[in-house]
Amino acid sequence: MIEIERKFLVASNAFKSDALRKNNIAQGYLSAHTERTVRVRIKGEKGYLTIKGKSNETGLSRFEWEKDISVEEAKQLLLLCEKGVIEKIRYEIQVGEHLFEVDEFLGENEGLVIAEVELQSESEIFEKPSWLGIEVTQDHRYYNSYLSQNPFTSW
Amino acid sequence: MIEIERKFLVASNAFKSDALRKNNIAQGYLSAHTERTVRVRIKGEKGYLTIKGKSNETGLSRFEWEKDISVEEAKQLLLLCEKGVIEKIRYEIQVGEHLFEVDEFLGENEGLVIAEVELQSESEIFEKPSWLGIEVTQDHRYYNSYLSQNPFTSW
Repeated sequence: MIEIERKFLVASNAFKSDALRKNNIAQGYLSAHTERTVRVRIKGEKGYLTIKGKSNETGLSRFEWEKDISVEEAKQLLLLCEKGVIEKIRYEIQVGEHLFEVDEFLGENEGLVIAEVELQSESEIFEKPSWLGIEVTQDHRYYNSYLSQNPFTSW
Repeated sequence: MIEIERKFLVASNAFKSDALRKNNIAQGYLSAHTERTVRVRIKGEKGYLTIKGKSNETGLSRFEWEKDISVEEAKQLLLLCEKGVIEKIRYEIQVGEHLFEVDEFLGENEGLVIAEVELQSESEIFEKPSWLGIEVTQDHRYYNSYLSQNPFTSW
C-alpha cells in the first residue's frame, strides 16, 4: 500500500497529558538505504517487519509493506541489523478526526520529539494541535533510517 | 535458525533425468550486503521473504529466517529490489539420504549450474552423485546476492 503522512517537530510536552496509549519501541534497519528500507521493530509486545520504498517527489507518499512477526523473531533479526538501533516512546493522541503519533526519542537521539499524522490523500485537511511545531516532512534528516546512522545528538 | 549447506558446480546434465521436481524461481534483493541479505523470491506459485546473516568462518553455516508471503506481495516487493533479478530453474534430486537442489541459471547468469545440499552438521557425510563438480562453498562469487550484482556472463 501507499502510506501518506506529514511529519512535524513538537513545540511542547503538552501532548503527553492527552495520550491515549504509550508504547516503548526499539527498531533497527536491515537496510537503511533511501531507495528501500527494511525495518525490524518491537513495539510493546509485538514484532513487525516493515519494508518501505522511496518517497515520491512531494515527500508525502511512500510504498509501505508490513508483516507481523513474533517478538522472539524480531529480537533475533535486531541482532542482524546495521549499527544504530533506535529507542523511543510512542504516544498516540487523537486530535479531531486524526490520530497523531508522537515519538519521544531516547539514547543517542534524546532531545528529539517528532509528531506524525497519516492522511488519506496528500491534500487532506487536519486540525493542528497547539503543541505542533514546524513541518519537517521533506527533511530527510528526520527519517528514522537516517537517525539510526546519524543520531540527533551528533548533529 | 542456522542453515548449514555445501555448494558445488555441476559437471554434467545427468542430474536432470533424476529430478523429482522442477520449479521456476525469480528472486531479487532488497539488500545484497554480505553482512545481511534480504531476498524476495517467487518459486512456482509461492512467495518468500528470506533474511540471511553472514557466513561463519568455515563458510558453511549461516543464520536464515524465512516467511511465506503471497505471490502478489512478492511481485510488489520485487519492483523495489536492487537491479539484477535472478531467474533460474530449480531441480530437486534425491541422492541417498540427501536432497540436492540444482539451480540452472537463466538470463545474465546463463551457463551457470550450481548444486546445493543442506546438512544437519558441518561434518555430516553425504553421497556424491556422479554429476557433482568442484566444491565452491567458500567462494563468495557463487552467492546469489553476488551474482545479482555481478552476473556470471560478465565474469
